Amino acid sequence: MSDIIVSSRVRLARNYEDLPFRGKISAAQCEECVNRTLSALRDLPEAYTYLPMEGMEENEKQALVESHLVSPDLLKEEMGAAVLVRGDERIALMMNEEDHLRIQAFAPGDDLKEAVQGAFSIEDTLQKKLSFAFDPQLGYLTACPTNTGTGMRASMMLHLPMLTLFKQMGKVGQLAAKVGLTIRGIYGEGSEAQGNLYQLSNQVTLGRTEEELAQAVTATALQMAEMERVFRKRAWEKDRVAFEDQLFRSYGLLTNARRMNVKEFMVHWSNLRLGAAMEKLPVSYESTLSLLTAAQPAHVLKAAGAALSEKEQDAYRCEIIRSALQGGN
Amino acid sequence: MSDIIVSSRVRLARNYEDLPFRGKISAAQCEECVNRTLSALRDLPEAYTYLPMEGMEENEKQALVESHLVSPDLLKEEMGAAVLVRGDERIALMMNEEDHLRIQAFAPGDDLKEAVQGAFSIEDTLQKKLSFAFDPQLGYLTACPTNTGTGMRASMMLHLPMLTLFKQMGKVGQLAAKVGLTIRGIYGEGSEAQGNLYQLSNQVTLGRTEEELAQAVTATALQMAEMERVFRKRAWEKDRVAFEDQLFRSYGLLTNARRMNVKEFMVHWSNLRLGAAMEKLPVSYESTLSLLTAAQPAHVLKAAGAALSEKEQDAYRCEIIRSALQGGN
Repeated sequence: MSDIIVSSRVRLARNYEDLPFRGKISAAQCEECVNRTLSALRDLPEAYTYLPMEGMEENEKQALVESHLVSPDLLKEEMGAAVLVRGDERIALMMNEEDHLRIQAFAPGDDLKEAVQGAFSIEDTLQKKLSFAFDPQLGYLTACPTNTGTGMRASMMLHLPMLTLFKQMGKVGQLAAKVGLTIRGIYGEGSEAQGNLYQLSNQVTLGRTEEELAQAVTATALQMAEMERVFRKRAWEKDRVAFEDQLFRSYGLLTNARRMNVKEFMVHWSNLRLGAAMEKLPVSYESTLSLLTAAQPAHVLKAAGAALSEKEQDAYRCEIIRSALQGGN
Repeated sequence: MSDIIVSSRVRLARNYEDLPFRGKISAAQCEECVNRTLSALRDLPEAYTYLPMEGMEENEKQALVESHLVSPDLLKEEMGAAVLVRGDERIALMMNEEDHLRIQAFAPGDDLKEAVQGAFSIEDTLQKKLSFAFDPQLGYLTACPTNTGTGMRASMMLHLPMLTLFKQMGKVGQLAAKVGLTIRGIYGEGSEAQGNLYQLSNQVTLGRTEEELAQAVTATALQMAEMERVFRKRAWEKDRVAFEDQLFRSYGLLTNARRMNVKEFMVHWSNLRLGAAMEKLPVSYESTLSLLTAAQPAHVLKAAGAALSEKEQDAYRCEIIRSALQGGN
């Protein structure tokens, strides 16, 4: 189902039992939070990079948001906000966001299990040396009560162009809500569904086990993917040429345009992904994921390594796109 | 100047002195007109094809119009309307249109001289055996007095995208009118300037020699081409990337779309020709001329060799375009 389920993600909200919650924490305690976390994870076999938000260039921060390694909320925090990122960017541990720790794990495609394992493996390592705020009745305690319990949010990012086109997303949202799940745009709460990308995640964290939550997200995502597949087939059978025309026009523009803003890019990216998933375009759908990130504004600026006007950004974006699609891969 | 001057054309209106003009001619006399013409040209070294309009399929007729081998007016005539076409389609002699004969000669690019020579060489051959209606005072007599005199219309087809974009065509038209020339759309009188293509031709046929008429058209066309060149340079210098973006987007769509109507094709063709002329696209500008004709509606149907719905035509047009542009030539 990885042609439709673009990526999977888990985040665990955790707080140290001996430190005050975010609302009452001091700068020194924020520092302590970082220090003990880094110290506890020092012996992990993989390479990690510690990135404090303080002093970081605005564009670097935005690039982290675009990569989903930090939340937009982390950028609003002033004391001790930081992230620890594993070399392969599959693990990112935010510190001093809303909670002391937000352990995040990612996996490409529909491998939510791998993400779950990744997040809990970090939690295990930390718990061997440190203690989290935990109530036997309620579970893990968090700054905001909506996260209390498992503290877990499991999510899958789905690419649903045909459910969007055929105006099925309202219905799909209701279906998700019935089983305690919610659908949001690509960059989380309040963000638009650019590129026909949607995040499906659990709404509640209390009263269900981690396995149940992950299971609910997975089952519903598979169901939505199956619906999307039906609508793709229907559109294809209704007018194959119109369908191909839409895919190839976007491919033609992505491989030829010399100036493109991110909003237009997202429209064509959606068709690129769709065409790749349907094996109509000379691109693998796996490769579209890195292009999605590489063409976002902060990544474009970062790659250029220089201050660019908006027009220059739109031109450099095209160079990145064409280079990524060269040779049809 | 052939990057901007797409093609050159000459037509001579001639009438046999012993046959009544079109308004009073009989069916038998129309037949006689055809027979004596074919007979007089029998010994020409090149291969010619005689195509009577009667009984010809509508689409075949339209294809002849698209190739500029016959005028739309010829299709309206009922008696004896026919065309004699040289194998290379550089000579096309219409019979029983408004005049008994319309000798047409074509040359690619700005070689109006070749077209003039081609037309007069046919006239010479005919005059050795036959006599045209001629008045020592007025010159050649024609059905419509506006053609009397030389009976010649010399024209050049120009590709003027930047003069169009920068709204200079009104001014250019006035400039042409001052020297007795007129500017029309690609398919002659009353037709739109599709693809930013314009026909510059002499308005009057009387009181000036054939050489003077051809000279006036050539000089003015060169002047217009020079103006177009200035505006191209200006647009390029103002925003090179926007210019390239426009060219490459059209190229990307032409080489990728799977359904395109002729109106959209003409927009992108104009950018293709412009990009080829400016050596920005991997296409020679010479090659764009045959694509222009091949993608017109009747040619698409003819190439398909079958009745097609409008959608099917738009799809087949894309196959023709992609095949023509394959390998960037």
